[in-house]
Order: sequence, then C-alpha cells, then structure tokens
Amino acid sequence: MSSVFGKLFTVSTWGESHGKAIGAVVDGCPSGLEISEEYIQVFLDRRRPGQSMLTTQRKESDKVKILSGVFEGKTTGTPISLIIENIDQHSADYEQIKNWYRPGHADEVYDSKYGFRDYRGGGRSSARETAARVAAGSIARKFLSEKCGTEFEALVCGEIQTAIEAARKNGDSIGGIINLTIKNPPKNLGEPIFDRTEALLAMAMLSIPATKGFEIGEGFNAAKMLGSEHNKLGENHAGGTYGGITSGEDIFCRIAFKPTPSISQIQKAKNKNGEIGEISIKGRHDPCVAVRAPVIVESMAALVLMDLWLRNLK
Amino acid sequence: MSSVFGKLFTVSTWGESHGKAIGAVVDGCPSGLEISEEYIQVFLDRRRPGQSMLTTQRKESDKVKILSGVFEGKTTGTPISLIIENIDQHSADYEQIKNWYRPGHADEVYDSKYGFRDYRGGGRSSARETAARVAAGSIARKFLSEKCGTEFEALVCGEIQTAIEAARKNGDSIGGIINLTIKNPPKNLGEPIFDRTEALLAMAMLSIPATKGFEIGEGFNAAKMLGSEHNKLGENHAGGTYGGITSGEDIFCRIAFKPTPSISQIQKAKNKNGEIGEISIKGRHDPCVAVRAPVIVESMAALVLMDLWLRNLK
Amino acid sequence: MSSVFGKLFTVSTWGESHGKAIGAVVDGCPSGLEISEEYIQVFLDRRRPGQSMLTTQRKESDKVKILSGVFEGKTTGTPISLIIENIDQHSADYEQIKNWYRPGHADEVYDSKYGFRDYRGGGRSSARETAARVAAGSIARKFLSEKCGTEFEALVCGEIQTAIEAARKNGDSIGGIINLTIKNPPKNLGEPIFDRTEALLAMAMLSIPATKGFEIGEGFNAAKMLGSEHNKLGENHAGGTYGGITSGEDIFCRIAFKPTPSISQIQKAKNKNGEIGEISIKGRHDPCVAVRAPVIVESMAALVLMDLWLRNLK
Amino acid sequence: MSSVFGKLFTVSTWGESHGKAIGAVVDGCPSGLEISEEYIQVFLDRRRPGQSMLTTQRKESDKVKILSGVFEGKTTGTPISLIIENIDQHSADYEQIKNWYRPGHADEVYDSKYGFRDYRGGGRSSARETAARVAAGSIARKFLSEKCGTEFEALVCGEIQTAIEAARKNGDSIGGIINLTIKNPPKNLGEPIFDRTEALLAMAMLSIPATKGFEIGEGFNAAKMLGSEHNKLGENHAGGTYGGITSGEDIFCRIAFKPTPSISQIQKAKNKNGEIGEISIKGRHDPCVAVRAPVIVESMAALVLMDLWLRNLK
Repeated sequence: MSSVFGKLFTVSTWGESHGKAIGAVVDGCPSGLEISEEYIQVFLDRRRPGQSMLTTQRKESDKVKILSGVFEGKTTGTPISLIIENIDQHSADYEQIKNWYRPGHADEVYDSKYGFRDYRGGGRSSARETAARVAAGSIARKFLSEKCGTEFEALVCGEIQTAIEAARKNGDSIGGIINLTIKNPPKNLGEPIFDRTEALLAMAMLSIPATKGFEIGEGFNAAKMLGSEHNKLGENHAGGTYGGITSGEDIFCRIAFKPTPSISQIQKAKNKNGEIGEISIKGRHDPCVAVRAPVIVESMAALVLMDLWLRNLK
Repeated sequence: MSSVFGKLFTVSTWGESHGKAIGAVVDGCPSGLEISEEYIQVFLDRRRPGQSMLTTQRKESDKVKILSGVFEGKTTGTPISLIIENIDQHSADYEQIKNWYRPGHADEVYDSKYGFRDYRGGGRSSARETAARVAAGSIARKFLSEKCGTEFEALVCGEIQTAIEAARKNGDSIGGIINLTIKNPPKNLGEPIFDRTEALLAMAMLSIPATKGFEIGEGFNAAKMLGSEHNKLGENHAGGTYGGITSGEDIFCRIAFKPTPSISQIQKAKNKNGEIGEISIKGRHDPCVAVRAPVIVESMAALVLMDLWLRNLK
Repeated sequence: MSSVFGKLFTVSTWGESHGKAIGAVVDGCPSGLEISEEYIQVFLDRRRPGQSMLTTQRKESDKVKILSGVFEGKTTGTPISLIIENIDQHSADYEQIKNWYRPGHADEVYDSKYGFRDYRGGGRSSARETAARVAAGSIARKFLSEKCGTEFEALVCGEIQTAIEAARKNGDSIGGIINLTIKNPPKNLGEPIFDRTEALLAMAMLSIPATKGFEIGEGFNAAKMLGSEHNKLGENHAGGTYGGITSGEDIFCRIAFKPTPSISQIQKAKNKNGEIGEISIKGRHDPCVAVRAPVIVESMAALVLMDLWLRNLK
Repeated sequence: MSSVFGKLFTVSTWGESHGKAIGAVVDGCPSGLEISEEYIQVFLDRRRPGQSMLTTQRKESDKVKILSGVFEGKTTGTPISLIIENIDQHSADYEQIKNWYRPGHADEVYDSKYGFRDYRGGGRSSARETAARVAAGSIARKFLSEKCGTEFEALVCGEIQTAIEAARKNGDSIGGIINLTIKNPPKNLGEPIFDRTEALLAMAMLSIPATKGFEIGEGFNAAKMLGSEHNKLGENHAGGTYGGITSGEDIFCRIAFKPTPSISQIQKAKNKNGEIGEISIKGRHDPCVAVRAPVIVESMAALVLMDLWLRNLK
C-alpha cells in the first residue's frame, strides 16, 4: 500500500475509520510558517458530517492535534505529525454485513488483494481517511496563500438539493460534480512530460474516493472545438496550464463523483462464497458524497501545487 | 524536469523534436521476455505520421534501435535503452516564428520557466516525445499480454473524418475523444489511497500532450446516477476498479484531446516583448491529434498496469 | 526534510525529543503478520536508557502504541502508525545553553539551515528519534525471521567497559564500534548499480546519529589483500554480497560511532553571534552511544533487507 | 533493477560492457549551464584504461556524445542523454569461461537472481558502467564549481605502485584506498534523519563496484577518541557535516576498494552445476581498481551534492 503523496512536500496518511485514530505526517514543510490546531480545525469542520440534512448524521468530532514539527507556534522544518482520534463509532452496524461485500465498495477487492480486511466501515478505504488529507492540505494552502496569494475554491455544481433530498428519502444516493477554481496560482509550476500540473491534479482528484472523472479548462468540451477557437489569446480555454506548466492564469477543473455506494435500500450483494443475497446497509451515510467533498478537493489541489512550488525553486 | 515515470518499471524519456535523437530507458523489466526491434517497430509505425490525409505529411521514419538490456533476443533484467534518431526535420520552418509564442503551445511558459528554449518544433514539449513512450510501452504490453492475457485497445470516438477534413481545408484543427478498453486486466492491481489504479491512469493520460479530460466507467455521467443504479451487480458501471483496485473486469476510460494548437490560419500571438501580432504556423501538422493518439494512450495504460503488476507481487 | 526511508516498505518517522510524542508510519507491510505492542516493546526496551551505569540515567519509559494497520492481532496491509509519548523531559536543562551551539552537535547547522530551531535536547536531531526506527524495524525483522529465517545480531566490539567508566567519571565520553551479523539473509536481494545491498546498508548505518564509518566483509582491510586471497571460494571475504546482490551467505558489517558529543566537562563553544565561550552540558547523557546502538543497527539493517525483499518478488 | 540515482538531479545509467553502447540520462539539470562533449571527455579520459602499466591495456576510446538537452552550447533544463559507444571488445575472451562463475564476481548471483545473464565481461555489473556515471557527474561538478566554487579531489592513498607492479607480474591483483576531499562545499546541504549528507555519500561510494568501506572525518578512528578531543572547535574531526548537514567546512572521506577479482592466476571456481574447477581469467584487467577510480569517486560525490543542492533551494 502506498499512502505517501508528493515528492518534496510529502504527506503520509494512516488510520482506519473504526480504529483508534487517523492521521497524517507532513514532511518537507518550510520552517517559519505559523500553524495552530485552531487553524487546521476550520478546514476539518468544513468536511465534518452532521451539519445539515444533506449530509450524514454521524457526529465525528474530528479534533486535530499537532504532535510534532511546530515549536512556539511555527513550523520548524521537521515532520508535522497530525492526529485525529476516532470517537462515535458504531462498529456494531457492520457486524451483520461483515460477510457481505457491499456493492460499489472496495470490500471484495480488498479481501482478494490482502486476504484479510477490517470490515468495519470500509477500514482504510473509508472516506474518513480524507480528514487526514484535509488537515495536511490546510498547511499547504496557508503557505501558498501567504507566499503567493493563491486561493482554492471548490463548489458543488448546480442546484442539486432537491435531488439529494429525494434520494435520501428513498434510501438511495446520487452523484455530483465539483468545480474547482485555483485563483492566482504561482506561475511556472509543473514539470514537462510526466509531472505536468494537470496530470498531478488529475491523479490527486482521482485518488479521492468515489471520483470518476477529471477535466481541466474546456475538458471534454474541447474535443468539439476548433483550434482557432481554443487558441484565442486571453480566453484561457486551457484552464491555466500549457504543456503542463502554469501560466499564472486561474486554473479551472471539474471533478465527477459517483453516487454514495452505501444505501439503505435493499440491494443485491455477493458474499465471500460467491453467493448472491440481499442486504440493506445500516449506518449513517451521506446521500451525496459531493456535498462534503469541496474542502477535500481544495486540499488535494493545494498539496499538488505546494509540492510543485518546492520543486520549482531556483 | 521530471521525465521519469513509474516506481518499479521506470521509464525515463529524453530528446527534443529537432535534436539528434529521442529515446527512453526502461528499467525494471523482468528478465527473460523476448523483445526485438521489429516487435517494437510495429507500435511506432502505428503512431507514425504521414499515413493518411488525416495526419501530418511529415515523414518520420521512427526506426527504433535497442542499445542495451537485451541479450540473445531476451531481456536480461538490466535497463533497456531505446533510441530513435531524428531525421526529416524542417528546422527552417521555425526560424521565422522563433520570437513569437505560438498560441495554445507551451512556448511562453517554457521561456518563463527555463529562461531559455529550443524553439524548433516545440523542443521537449513536442508530441514527438511520445514516440519514446510508445516504444517503452510496447515492452510493458508484451509482458502483460503473455503473462496475464491483458490487451489494450484505444479507438477514436465517433465518425469525425468529415470534421477533420473540413478543419484541415480551413487551415484549422479539431479536438477528439479516445475510448480506451483494457481487456482482461490483472486483478488486485492498484494501491489504495494515493496510487489508485484510476488515479495513475488519469495521471498517465493527462501527461499526454493536448489532453484535457479523463473519465473511468460512467465518468461524468455517474454524477447524474442514483446509487441503486450505479451499484448494480454485474453491470460494471465503475469501469473495473473499486477503491482504486482492479477487480479483473474490463477497464473503460475516455480521454479528451483539445484541437491541435498548430494551425496555418492566421491567428493572434504574443512575442517575447509582450507585443501582439499575427502569425501563420508553417510546417506539417496533424489537423486532429486524436487520430494518431490511440497507440500512445494504450502505451501509457500499459506502463501504469505493468508498474502496478510488479508492485502487487507477493 | 526527508524522513521517509524505503521504496516499498516505507518508514516515515516524526517527532522531537522534547515535543509531545515521537512515532513512525510503516507503509507497505504485507498483510497477515502477527504484531502486538508487547512484541515491539521488547526491542524498545533494549534501546531504552537507564539500564546500567554505562548508559544515561534518563528514565524514558518508551511505551509504544499501535494506532492503525493491525486488526485482530494481524497486519492488514494498511499503514501501521506507531506512537511513543514523551515523558520525563528535563527541558529546563537546555534553557541555560539555548544560545550556545553545543560542539559536535547539529545545533549550528540547524540554525543556519532552518533559521529556527527547537533547542530542547537536539529537537529532531536527537538520538531519541531512533526509538521510532527501532519500533518500525521490529516489524521488518519479525517478517524476515518468520518468512526467511533471517536473524540480526549486533554487538559492541571489544571490552570497553573500563574505558567508558573512565570517560564517564571524567565528564567525558568515548566512541565505539559495532559488529553486525545478518544470519541467513534471503538470497538474490539487492539491485545492481545504485541500490546495491551494501550501498543501502551503508546509507542506513550512516543515517544513525554519531556514525562515522561503515565496512562490509573485509572492509578497509581488503585494501591490503591480494585478489588471490580475497577471491577464495568458501571464505566469504566479501561479507555476503557480490555486485551488490546477496548470495545467501551471512552478511558481516562494522559501524564506527564517534564519542557522544554531549559531555559535562567544560568545553569551548560558539554562540549565535559567533562569540567563543565555555559551556558544560548538563542533563543525563550516555558516555558511549555505541552501548545502546546495537538494536538500532539491527533495526536499520532489517528495514533495508525488508525493502529489498519486497523489491525482489517475482 | 534500479539504475536511477538522485531525487531532483536524477541519473539513469544503462548499457552492458559488451553491448552496443552505454550511456546515461541526466534529468533535472538547471538550464543555462554551458556543457560540451569536449568538456565531458576530459573526465572520461581520466577514467579510461590503457594509460599506464598500472592499468588495463584495453583501448576503450570512450568518446561521449550528447544527444539531447543541450541547445546552442547550453543546457535547456530538459533531459541530457549521453552515449558512449562500445568498441574494442574482446567478447571471445569470455566464451571459454561462460559456464564458470568467476570468483569474487557477481556472475553466480546474477544467474541466481535473473536466471539469465550476459556473460561477456560482467555485462551490467562491469565496471565499464561507471563511465556513464563519470559523464553524468562531470555535469554536476561543473554546476557546483561555477555556482558555489566547490571542487572534488580524490587520490589513491599511499605509494602503492610497487605493490601493484608485483601483483601484476604474479597474475594477481591488489586493493587500495582512496581519499576524497570536497573543497568548499555548499553549506546547509543534507536532510536530517535518513538523507544525511554522509549517508548519501556512503551509499554513493558503496555503489561503486569493488568498494568495501566508507569513512567520513575521523571514521573508524573516532571510535577510539574521547568526546573532549573529537568536539574541539576548529579542528573538523567530523569531516564537514553535523547531524547530516554540511557546515561549509571541507568534507573528508576515505573509500576502501577490494583487489580486482579478475586475475590471470589459476584459481578455483564453481560452475552452473555446482562443480569446482580451475580457471584462469584472460582479458585485460586492472591489477588495482583503485588506480582508475578517483574520477569515479569524485563524480559520485558530485552527484550527491548536486542533488542535495537542488533540494536545499529556498
């Protein structure tokens, strides 16, 4: 398993949804950046469930602690260890389906790959792991904001509240799209060939659970455009990168999320013996994962740009 | 610049479109695989321009030579050095626009980032670099085909010949979409969290010049689906991966390409002094980059799966 | 700062000697290995100070907790987070020398490199960080012992108790040499060229604080030997590797440690203003770092072989 | 096989001693550095055999060609591909011992690891591969010399010509020690914990064929010293690094080389069937590998410092 992201600004996340805690180790952060638990908490609170009817009613308190790397309120250049304890776990919800592979989940492939699985709440493949990314990403975005004036803004695309509410009432779920704007990104970021800015953004976004697509600039729409249209000076159809390198123009991306696989509706499922049965997934799940995802999207984008920023130092 | 791809099966590409040669070093290929220059050449010939009116009329002979890593017809486990000499270069075509930044190209950002640029044909950011990837990818696909029965098939989506022809006559260009199917992929590939199969495929695809979007399974369409639909057993809406791990089902992806930025139509452009002028790009360019791209898409997919296959050994 | 070790079996350590805790995240451990806090504790106890007059009288309880990656007593294949809380810290000991750079320590270069430093006890450069390595290494050695029958044994070279005792009484310190034997190592480990077994062992050993030299096989003595002697079949002058690859024969290494730089004798030191003064380092320090180092040496060797073992899977 | 060295300044070497060519791809070199084939050739000529009775009488012309990454005499920031064609190969010398494992060589472990081997001249494990490192290293040292005034000087330790001559006449070989001085190194290089300057130097040196030991500063002698002696301000017993970070003082290292394993004296050897026989190794071999090694040692040191220099940019 490879839970390390980044080349110079590296983030190692760890932890299962129903274990003792989750966390991240951030290595490579420059010294002298002011960071506090209160600052990081603001971003975790944006991701936290239970804030409206549109999200799960689980009460994850998600309180972050900084265990290392910060001295007298400032980063020292050493690894920053972030920890979030797990509380309010309903492991019992999972007991009755521990032998069933939840459809649309990684249960079956985990069993196949590792021969062994923490069946409670998805274990490592739980979206809860993204809290650690948000905590890590908050450090990157603070650095980029202070140093370069860069800001990250992700929004759920369209007015989908009604559709979400309908899905929830039906014991069902629905997908969604998130628009990401990176305002005032540093210019000259990105390495030609494999580590292009858009390639690393695509990887970062598709590493978020439930994502199925990524676009930059005109995205799939570009396929229908003429060169004479797409090229037009000053119109930023490319979405802020050329040949993988940022021009300093705003970066525009879109990310597609599939519907939450955990639904309470009865659905067909396989078990370890290959038998087909019917299950209903209890527990408290988001009817639309995209609703809580904007801060995750912003955080992953910040990690990408932070790493490229360090790699571009001259 | 980071021109190294992969963790265990690593590919380092090098070379500019108008330099002496381009090439790749493939490190980490298991020993004992039969490889010949003739075998690799078949894939390079698929990428080669000049094969129809729909592609550029440049005559790139693209003859590959194996300089190391193969002994008595088989890989030895040592680095495989592949070289393709550059011939039929019309460097003079670029002399007259050397001070202009071609719109939609990386010219301006390269100058900004490196302070220095080989202005002939895009230099390193030229699509010619992808020939080296195709050569490297052909080794990965042979291994996966023999060992696992995996096959890669990419096709341009839709009947776009008329639109391409119209664009070409206008001195313009057009975008396109490529559908990629990976048949019979090894199961259990992919590392949870950051190195998910779809994340690495997204990165690989967005590292191909002119790409603007990536989808797996239902892709952006998944955003409109209900969980009860998307989850359905046996319907493979996910596109062959769950939680980033391959299930053994076929993998389906789509990749969006923007229109070729090099067009002969007169268009507005900036120069080094920030002045706006008008240029017409001479040279022989593809009216639609997607036409020659399928073999590149297949090659990058093969590199991703080969690396994950080695990482999954137990 | 790069606190990540290994390519497939990666260890990220974090924590300062006088912060809240130290720890390690171990990523890439195969699933199904039995691991418990009690098992790991045995190795930490070997490293723990305060066990004899020959070591510091600090009482580091060094109790390890496993926060993730182990379910029902077995590794799940997910990252294993290990944490050791810091207690019994005498930060006040460092207040009076906070503006002085301790001779032979990293104080001055840390200030120069990071512009900022946790002056309590060496911060990140403290030997306390090695407790996290020992915890991580204990997992690697258990795997190698069970899977391959490999054992690691490091011993202080020579009868140096009298010299240590003399140094201690003088408020001074002394260096030492450790002999490492790896019994029954897996064969065929090591990657030719840069990642040779001995190159990675050398790196691992020289990454332990206070180390100044590394030898394998005959080491420096080989420089005086004839080829006809060194080559002799069955005599293992090489120390168990050829061209960087393990032959399966026992591996023999020696590691040199300098004397502990922290001594209570009055010595000359520089301060931040470049002035020279005299300081006496209070606190409880080992008169010979080599005494507690064998388990650290064994742990680092286990991390190297574990990573190479995973890389050698076919 | 992992033939990639470095994190930001990466060098991938390729090629066998008796294949068509050997070479290196250098990725990550800043743009604007003046580099020519003539400049690199000077260093290759220092490594070249056949210059005195003390070295092998093979005539390797070792002419380097730059295939990419340099435009109008300056690096462009893109990968620099270096190639050296193999000529004057006496493959026939190896035919008669192709089924015998030369003692002290990697022949047996290669066969065991890869199941397949280019038996001519050691193939990939041949010291000829180091020519590619020297070519790559010459670029790093030029950069460091111009930017930081750093110089690398390695010398064979002691007056060993008589011993070499005696060994040669006997059809035998002898080992040697090389002293490396890095004058005026950049300060603040090195990453605490695993990527310490001395750890990376140790790895780099032990990756050179036939090396068996590495020391920095007082090295093994430090084991016998007192803290009060070793600490002394202004005496640089540490050899230029503290806690893994360069202080700007000169760096002193020593590297031990074993005797050349290829000797013409009759010696016992094993073959593929495990039988013991007697062989005499024909061909033209150095009686002491250390004689031609200084430029290799300097080159590897330059690669380490160059990579750390890039990683230290702020």
